[in-house]
Amino acid sequence: MTLWGGRFSGDMDSAAWKLNASINVDQRLALQDIRGSQAWAEALMDAGVLSAVEFEQIHTGLQAVKSEFEAGTFVIEAVDEDIHTAVERRLSELIGPAAGKLHTGRSRNDQVVTDLRLWLLDELPALRKSLESLQAVLLGRSERDLGVVMPGYTHLQRAQPILLSHWWLSHFWPLQRDRQRLAELKGRVSILPLGSGALAGTPFPIDRQALAARLGFSQPAPNSLDAVSDRDFVAEFLFCAGLIGIHLSRLAEVVILFCSTEFGFFELTDAFSTGSSLMPQKANPDVFELARGKSGALVGFLVGFLTTLKGLPSAYDKDLQEDKPPLFHAFDALQGLLPVLAGALDTLKINPQRMLQSINPSLMATDLADYFVEMGLPFRQAHTLVGKAIQLAQAQGKSLDQLSLEEYRSLAEDLPSLPIDAALYKSFDPVASISRRSSIGGTSPHSVEEQLQQARGALSLI
Amino acid sequence: MTLWGGRFSGDMDSAAWKLNASINVDQRLALQDIRGSQAWAEALMDAGVLSAVEFEQIHTGLQAVKSEFEAGTFVIEAVDEDIHTAVERRLSELIGPAAGKLHTGRSRNDQVVTDLRLWLLDELPALRKSLESLQAVLLGRSERDLGVVMPGYTHLQRAQPILLSHWWLSHFWPLQRDRQRLAELKGRVSILPLGSGALAGTPFPIDRQALAARLGFSQPAPNSLDAVSDRDFVAEFLFCAGLIGIHLSRLAEVVILFCSTEFGFFELTDAFSTGSSLMPQKANPDVFELARGKSGALVGFLVGFLTTLKGLPSAYDKDLQEDKPPLFHAFDALQGLLPVLAGALDTLKINPQRMLQSINPSLMATDLADYFVEMGLPFRQAHTLVGKAIQLAQAQGKSLDQLSLEEYRSLAEDLPSLPIDAALYKSFDPVASISRRSSIGGTSPHSVEEQLQQARGALSLI
Amino acid sequence: MTLWGGRFSGDMDSAAWKLNASINVDQRLALQDIRGSQAWAEALMDAGVLSAVEFEQIHTGLQAVKSEFEAGTFVIEAVDEDIHTAVERRLSELIGPAAGKLHTGRSRNDQVVTDLRLWLLDELPALRKSLESLQAVLLGRSERDLGVVMPGYTHLQRAQPILLSHWWLSHFWPLQRDRQRLAELKGRVSILPLGSGALAGTPFPIDRQALAARLGFSQPAPNSLDAVSDRDFVAEFLFCAGLIGIHLSRLAEVVILFCSTEFGFFELTDAFSTGSSLMPQKANPDVFELARGKSGALVGFLVGFLTTLKGLPSAYDKDLQEDKPPLFHAFDALQGLLPVLAGALDTLKINPQRMLQSINPSLMATDLADYFVEMGLPFRQAHTLVGKAIQLAQAQGKSLDQLSLEEYRSLAEDLPSLPIDAALYKSFDPVASISRRSSIGGTSPHSVEEQLQQARGALSLI
Amino acid sequence: MTLWGGRFSGDMDSAAWKLNASINVDQRLALQDIRGSQAWAEALMDAGVLSAVEFEQIHTGLQAVKSEFEAGTFVIEAVDEDIHTAVERRLSELIGPAAGKLHTGRSRNDQVVTDLRLWLLDELPALRKSLESLQAVLLGRSERDLGVVMPGYTHLQRAQPILLSHWWLSHFWPLQRDRQRLAELKGRVSILPLGSGALAGTPFPIDRQALAARLGFSQPAPNSLDAVSDRDFVAEFLFCAGLIGIHLSRLAEVVILFCSTEFGFFELTDAFSTGSSLMPQKANPDVFELARGKSGALVGFLVGFLTTLKGLPSAYDKDLQEDKPPLFHAFDALQGLLPVLAGALDTLKINPQRMLQSINPSLMATDLADYFVEMGLPFRQAHTLVGKAIQLAQAQGKSLDQLSLEEYRSLAEDLPSLPIDAALYKSFDPVASISRRSSIGGTSPHSVEEQLQQARGALSLI
Repeated sequence: MTLWGGRFSGDMDSAAWKLNASINVDQRLALQDIRGSQAWAEALMDAGVLSAVEFEQIHTGLQAVKSEFEAGTFVIEAVDEDIHTAVERRLSELIGPAAGKLHTGRSRNDQVVTDLRLWLLDELPALRKSLESLQAVLLGRSERDLGVVMPGYTHLQRAQPILLSHWWLSHFWPLQRDRQRLAELKGRVSILPLGSGALAGTPFPIDRQALAARLGFSQPAPNSLDAVSDRDFVAEFLFCAGLIGIHLSRLAEVVILFCSTEFGFFELTDAFSTGSSLMPQKANPDVFELARGKSGALVGFLVGFLTTLKGLPSAYDKDLQEDKPPLFHAFDALQGLLPVLAGALDTLKINPQRMLQSINPSLMATDLADYFVEMGLPFRQAHTLVGKAIQLAQAQGKSLDQLSLEEYRSLAEDLPSLPIDAALYKSFDPVASISRRSSIGGTSPHSVEEQLQQARGALSLI
Repeated sequence: MTLWGGRFSGDMDSAAWKLNASINVDQRLALQDIRGSQAWAEALMDAGVLSAVEFEQIHTGLQAVKSEFEAGTFVIEAVDEDIHTAVERRLSELIGPAAGKLHTGRSRNDQVVTDLRLWLLDELPALRKSLESLQAVLLGRSERDLGVVMPGYTHLQRAQPILLSHWWLSHFWPLQRDRQRLAELKGRVSILPLGSGALAGTPFPIDRQALAARLGFSQPAPNSLDAVSDRDFVAEFLFCAGLIGIHLSRLAEVVILFCSTEFGFFELTDAFSTGSSLMPQKANPDVFELARGKSGALVGFLVGFLTTLKGLPSAYDKDLQEDKPPLFHAFDALQGLLPVLAGALDTLKINPQRMLQSINPSLMATDLADYFVEMGLPFRQAHTLVGKAIQLAQAQGKSLDQLSLEEYRSLAEDLPSLPIDAALYKSFDPVASISRRSSIGGTSPHSVEEQLQQARGALSLI
Repeated sequence: MTLWGGRFSGDMDSAAWKLNASINVDQRLALQDIRGSQAWAEALMDAGVLSAVEFEQIHTGLQAVKSEFEAGTFVIEAVDEDIHTAVERRLSELIGPAAGKLHTGRSRNDQVVTDLRLWLLDELPALRKSLESLQAVLLGRSERDLGVVMPGYTHLQRAQPILLSHWWLSHFWPLQRDRQRLAELKGRVSILPLGSGALAGTPFPIDRQALAARLGFSQPAPNSLDAVSDRDFVAEFLFCAGLIGIHLSRLAEVVILFCSTEFGFFELTDAFSTGSSLMPQKANPDVFELARGKSGALVGFLVGFLTTLKGLPSAYDKDLQEDKPPLFHAFDALQGLLPVLAGALDTLKINPQRMLQSINPSLMATDLADYFVEMGLPFRQAHTLVGKAIQLAQAQGKSLDQLSLEEYRSLAEDLPSLPIDAALYKSFDPVASISRRSSIGGTSPHSVEEQLQQARGALSLI
Repeated sequence: MTLWGGRFSGDMDSAAWKLNASINVDQRLALQDIRGSQAWAEALMDAGVLSAVEFEQIHTGLQAVKSEFEAGTFVIEAVDEDIHTAVERRLSELIGPAAGKLHTGRSRNDQVVTDLRLWLLDELPALRKSLESLQAVLLGRSERDLGVVMPGYTHLQRAQPILLSHWWLSHFWPLQRDRQRLAELKGRVSILPLGSGALAGTPFPIDRQALAARLGFSQPAPNSLDAVSDRDFVAEFLFCAGLIGIHLSRLAEVVILFCSTEFGFFELTDAFSTGSSLMPQKANPDVFELARGKSGALVGFLVGFLTTLKGLPSAYDKDLQEDKPPLFHAFDALQGLLPVLAGALDTLKINPQRMLQSINPSLMATDLADYFVEMGLPFRQAHTLVGKAIQLAQAQGKSLDQLSLEEYRSLAEDLPSLPIDAALYKSFDPVASISRRSSIGGTSPHSVEEQLQQARGALSLI
């Protein structure tokens, strides 16, 4: 049984049928399809198309179909081309010809995208919750690890000392932007297509405002052609998912680095490590590598679907059936990853001593330059002076703090007005360096405390 | 001159220098760079790092550099690695050593992304204006072409009659969503990185709230590591641009189709057509093909930049320099396309007669089925009945309205309760078909009038 | 049971386990995994690591495991992390501790990519066969439809008359290039990783040349680090698949156009058409829309995997586990599509009369210009002259062949040496126009016959 | 002047003109365009369309135009829509009306893609040379650094000791595959479109075989529709470029890691390092970060162009004009990167002592397990035994070689037949570990010597 066979004389080619059928993918929309159909039946009754008795029959029948899906007893038949067909077929088995009245005034074109929007509205909160949980872990780590000092990096070169808490929070904010984007996306998902018919609208006096409200949408779509054609919300979700993937890949990259013997800053617990089938000593950060690796697939889903959309001419083209696989895959990939990363980060062990030891005096080179600035030297000259000190120190196999005052004075002999005395060595204290960076957003303990406050507020905001 | 040579003993390899230098691309940020530096100088003065005299010197000097850029007289030197270097180099030529104080407490890491955000904040309104203008043309066409009837398509098959005005508006709403996304993006661009230093914050008592306000940002970035690392706003812009590209490709595809001899619905004016170097008769819709073609590049910019971001480990990695080419290319591509499409659509000639003639009675097959529904038949059976009528008509080389009442009665002989009389032929009036679809979002003249009202409101909303 | 638990004290987190496990995907490699293990066992025996008895035990045991997979009776256990673990676990159940000797000197790193290469070598011929079958259909149509004349298009504007057979063949050659690329890819798949260990090679005296020969590879990988890391062959396959997808999308696009009422050149049989749940009259080219739509996913798989590969640092990173989903999905998408397209094209009905009627005289404008060239006019002037004729004809609502000799003469009055007589009207014969294009690759019947010959040769070549 | 204005009455809109014009991009094809036109003129003479005198005029005129381009004196006029127009316009100024005969029987459709193929054929050798040079540097380093021992990594965890030379060569082979792909691509570029006219072939008796030979193509395109439509060679080039980009990103990633203080294996010379505008101590591996970063853009060019191609319907659509920007950008990006990377790798300093020190005894855990295998234990049990030893050692803060024989014996007490004596400590010698991996492709000095031999042969092969 198809929903459209009337004018056809031959059967469909079996390979073509298989290619065309989408039930394997779209059965995931079963509950949304039934909910949408129940609301549609009610709208038909309100419009005088169905009698109260017919509505009751259909509604109860659909409730029975729903129970079968929930109980896992629904049997998909070979003839069920898609979830809409399957549900109507079963309804018809349960209640007879009255089932044939359900599809009045609607089309699969407006039905399928209503189902998909309902599904996303249903599922978005879970994804946002997963992000929130990961953020909560990052926030918790930041609170727990307060006081731990580590080298900050640019170009993967040690740059300046920072607080580990500050670093944890630097991965909190991207996820906050992600949640913000998802919150905004929700408004664009919450537009009801149902009542758009195949493309031109419905000829029955359906109250689409009421229908939208009944299904939890904020408003009906303003244009029926656009309503059945618009998959922007899928593309936008895939972008959000892709960018979350990129954020996770960046976090994962550093965790992998920090778990290496060379860095030695982090250690994963056994619960989140994996071994080698050959090398007995290995404890590998597989879950973070998978996070990094899956960011590729997430980008691929986005670009693949944009390419599918490109150049589509009609209100509805069958190409749009390709919206569900990337949407479901992207959603599942994130829901698989996020809790694992949260667990792994929450439990990982840090090595504060190793971090502290990694802060050699050259990381305070900027502090030394800033000291000279305070002594009156323009920064550009101070930068050059410290650069020369570094050259000298390297040539002698020393660190910056091991150069003598005499050596500093000789480097500065063309700057007679610059006072060079023992106070300069205070620049090499990493804790003082950190404390100096006390503007908003800086790494000083005070700034980080304020940032934590802001982060706590942000977490509960969206 | 570089800003960083102090510790280096040898010169940079010339090919490496060329690879590394970004002045060819980032000189576009000159005015933003100067504006940011002026604000920074003021912040340094407020923080007591610069005296009022020094500030005045720097500010005036930068004003002079700005004038050179505006007049097109600024000379880029071989040593100018990037726009920041070029500006500081020139400032130093103009005002001497005081210029060396400007870079105190900041880094190119926070400077460059401040410039880029400023640039985007400066330019976003122009893009939104271009979108608005195209929307206004679509709205205007919809008003002007009211009453024109055309076939609506799904699967590129004629489906049901619609109003041309309804079709025009179906391309209005996607652009409305685009503008909405850009409006939301603006909030995420408007975060100030300046004052984040290289990664850890600035050690001078800079009032970043005041600095943000002075430069027109809504707030300072809450985390210095994230501030220098975050390019989400570029990725999000590229997504918005890519999706605009996709929308234009879909519009372009149909315009190209409608301009074909086979459809014959639209004709471009000579001002927006192109000829053939070989075939004298050709008038080609090149501008729409370019719109469709460039959607590919726009998708490419997005995915390319996401791939660049993937797995970046540090607060700042040089990879991030690759943010500007896709951003500028995408922006320019849209600003090149949008006004041309607006002009071409505004001036194109339509062929209402051809559109009307394309509406054969089979496009009212749903109306006939709906008529039977009104006569009491469940839709599913009505659909089957009309399907059979189509088969019969095709077999006889007739159209649906040419089947006789007898033929309809024989098709319905297993449905004795169904009244078959001449009223069924009223279903074949396309204008009536259109008028029936009068719910919100439908194609009826009344619904379209309401939609136009809504669209006018939407246009001035964002 | 994992293959690596020795040094671990705690169990893996269950969500992490689920994320990490790949058995759902890689069980598809079961037969290749067993074949590879059998060959490895033989290599171990040859190297003196296994006794003949042990080898026999392992070989027979693996044969039994294979039978279970072939019979569909193999039971995957909750502990089976991946297909390698599952096979070794089952082997161990069947033959006891001797199973523990199989993994000597190899690692899952070289094992998994050997399996994957074996799989692709096994499956490539089927894909190439599917392409060949579609090519054969195109070739067959070209032979069958010889003599049918149609308008050729550029910019979707009618351009010049061509043979339908020529058009069919224009879609044959891209697939030929696809098959050629796949043939060349095969050489790069046929490199044996096994014997590379985890990364550094195997310490046992394995004869890798013999091992390669036994498994049907052309040679062993020359570098063990590269061997376990190299997924170029997957990326290259995904590119080939993506480009095939693009080719199918272009073919599909035109078939969809030609099936529209406006063109009316093609009609799909019911076996390859789909109807509408709402509109009884519709017969939609869904299978071609799916072909066009799935090209997006195919591009997405390619770019997703390239993004996954980007920046991977080590010989083996777990990110590489993400190679199988895109490979399998891309392969399955093509194997689902190609036979259906072949069937649909083979059976579609053409409408030669409609095609012929679509050739209006302006399509011979170039022929007219060429005629003037033969009369001695430089082409550029001839082009301009015909351009003017078109303007005149349009102004008068005439076609080019309806302009009188007088009118042509007046258009050419500044070209006194140009003879204008009735012979010019011969330019408007579409069949003559086609016949004139008789160089290699042209649309003349003679050229197309030669091209058919070449195509037949090409089909059996690769 | 356009090449097509004849039938047009109005001027083109100026913004549309700007959008449509491609001269800014395609002027890069000037020499190829002229060469193609000279060959075409000769073909026209051979076909009797041009007299010898006319040919001579055109040929000499084109030679003059060429000289202007070579001398940099060619002036592009506002009316020059593209390079073809510019060249013909200038030719016409130089030789008068005879220039108008050049375009006889060809179209810009076959002309432009002939130019592009010629350009790629001209430029491919330079790219392959750049790859070869980088390979030569990797080969040279491998020879120069023979004997240096380093830890090999999987999952970025130290795995087993390897030779640095082996690691260098692991980056040689991917580039070899890249060159192989480019060599195969060449065959698909070398197909001549010229003589295909706009789409249907040329009506003049052009000898396309001779024309192909004259221009250095291997054969004429077999189908004129495909010839003007086919951009597979661009897509394939972009894939090759994208994969080269990925290879460079992977190499760059490790170089960046090895240059970090934490690894400390590599040090870039000042000629290939970059400093910080703020932090005087920094020496950043910018050129490798740019290589990694630009891999994103290269992937973007590929996917962007595939998206452009998707769904194109006609033999020639203007969308195809979008082929040149990604092609040129990708080519230039690689030609900018490759020599710099070669220079940087050739000159970088290695720290053999640091590498050797990074090989702790646990990297020989597999060797210890292999030793037990030689003593008769199945590998799986040996793996478990060593796993337990690692647990014990970690619990005691020892390394594997610091466990006593007693401790090993107690770990193996359930394996009474396993001899445990002092010989097991020989497993911990990294040099012996390396030497044992002496199969083809292994890291032993002997295997690497053989591999070097193979690499030298490969380098000169393609």
